[in-house]
Amino acid sequence: MLIGFGCSTQLLSEMYGIIMSPGFPEPYPRDTERNWNISVPAGFRISLFFTHFDLEPSYLCEYDYVKVEAEGKVLAVFCGKEETDTEQVPAQRVITSHRNSLSIRFSSDFSNEERFSGFVAHYSAVDVDECSEHSDEEQLCDHFCHNFIGGYYCSCRYGYQLHTDNHTCRVDCSGAVFRERSGVISSVNFPAPYPKSSNCSYQIEVEEGFRLHLQFDPRFDVEDHPDVTCPYDYIK
Amino acid sequence: MLIGFGCSTQLLSEMYGIIMSPGFPEPYPRDTERNWNISVPAGFRISLFFTHFDLEPSYLCEYDYVKVEAEGKVLAVFCGKEETDTEQVPAQRVITSHRNSLSIRFSSDFSNEERFSGFVAHYSAVDVDECSEHSDEEQLCDHFCHNFIGGYYCSCRYGYQLHTDNHTCRVDCSGAVFRERSGVISSVNFPAPYPKSSNCSYQIEVEEGFRLHLQFDPRFDVEDHPDVTCPYDYIK
Repeated sequence: MLIGFGCSTQLLSEMYGIIMSPGFPEPYPRDTERNWNISVPAGFRISLFFTHFDLEPSYLCEYDYVKVEAEGKVLAVFCGKEETDTEQVPAQRVITSHRNSLSIRFSSDFSNEERFSGFVAHYSAVDVDECSEHSDEEQLCDHFCHNFIGGYYCSCRYGYQLHTDNHTCRVDCSGAVFRERSGVISSVNFPAPYPKSSNCSYQIEVEEGFRLHLQFDPRFDVEDHPDVTCPYDYIK
Repeated sequence: MLIGFGCSTQLLSEMYGIIMSPGFPEPYPRDTERNWNISVPAGFRISLFFTHFDLEPSYLCEYDYVKVEAEGKVLAVFCGKEETDTEQVPAQRVITSHRNSLSIRFSSDFSNEERFSGFVAHYSAVDVDECSEHSDEEQLCDHFCHNFIGGYYCSCRYGYQLHTDNHTCRVDCSGAVFRERSGVISSVNFPAPYPKSSNCSYQIEVEEGFRLHLQFDPRFDVEDHPDVTCPYDYIK
C-alpha cells in the first residue's frame, strides 16, 4: 500500500501573510495536500493575490490544483501556467472573501515529473466600510454612519438620541404639559415623517370643570396593518 | 483683571472618537479655548467629519471659530451656520490629514448671547494604501507591493531575492564557472535591462597554457556619468 506525502491544515490569524506551495522555491512534492484556513476579526475581509503560479496543467484542473473557498463556496480553482478554456490561472486577479475567513487548498497528484515550481500567494485583511456598502434604501443608520477600521457606529442629528438598538434615532418628546384651553399637538416633524423608535407622552391639563375634546386632522398617517390592529405604531 | 474660562489641550490616540464643543449639547461658554491633538500610528491618516455645527458667525471667523491644522498647516477655519463669502462651515466635507496627526482648536470670544450650540465631530484612522498611491514612475517596490492595514512590504518575482533595502529585487548570479574554450557571458535578462542591486561574479577557467580574450558586444550599455568614472554600475 502506498501512502501519500500527507495532508495538513494550517490556521492563520495574522492580519497579513504569505502562503507558499510545500518546499517552495523547489518543485512541490507529489501526492500532497495542504490546507490553509485564514481567519481575521469580524469587520474585515481577506484579499488574496498570487505573485507566482506554476502548477501542472490538466483538464478542469483534475490533477494538481489550488482551490480557494469561503463560507463553503468555491471562489476559484487554479492550475497550469496559462489561462485556457478548461484551466484557470490566478494572473493579476485579486480574490476577496465576502466575510472574515478564507481557505486555500493545494493538492498534487501522484507525479510532478516536469518539476513545476508551485505558487506564492500574499493575503491581507481589508477593512469593510459598512457605511458606504449599504444603499440608501436599507440604511444601516438612521442619521449618520461612521466607519472605523474593524467596525462602524451610528450617531444622530442634534436634538435626537440614539436608541438602545444603536441604529435608530429617537426624539425626547415627552414631559411637556399642555395647559391652554385649546391648542395643537402634532407628532415631531409633522407633516414630515415622524421619527422612528420614539415614545411620546403628551399631557393636557385644564382647570377643573372643563372637558377635553380631541379632534384628529385628516392628514392623520400612522403605520397600519391589514389584519392586526396597530401592531407597529400607535396612538393611545 | 479678567481671566478667561480657560484653555486646555487633550491628546487623543484612539483609532476613532468624538470631539464636542465644551458643554455640548448646551451652548458653549464664552472666552474659551480648547485644543485636541489626535495622533494615530504611522501608516494611517485621520479623517474628520462634523455632524453638527452651529457657531457665532463673524467676518473671516474672527470671533468664534474651529480651526483644523496638520503639520503646522491650516486645513480649515469654520464658523457660523451657513456658508457665506467670508465664513466657511464644514457641511458634508470630510477633512483628511496627509499624515498621522491632526489638531483641532475651538475658540470662543467674550460673548455667546445667542446661545449657539457648538459642534460635534467624529474622527477615524484611515489606512494608507502605499502601493496604490505611488505612480509607476516612482515605484515603491521593484516588483510587487503588498498593502496591509498600517503598512506595506515588497516582494520579488520568482528567481529574484529582495535586497536588504527591502525595496529592490536582485538576482543570484554568481558562483557559475565557465570552463569552455569559447562562450558568451551576458548580464541577466540581456538584452532587456539588467536587474537592480545585483552583484554578479563570473569566473572563467580554462586549461593551463591558454590565454583568455574578452570581447565586448557593441550593445554594451551600463549606466555611466559625464564626470566620474562608473560611480553607480560597473564591470571590473
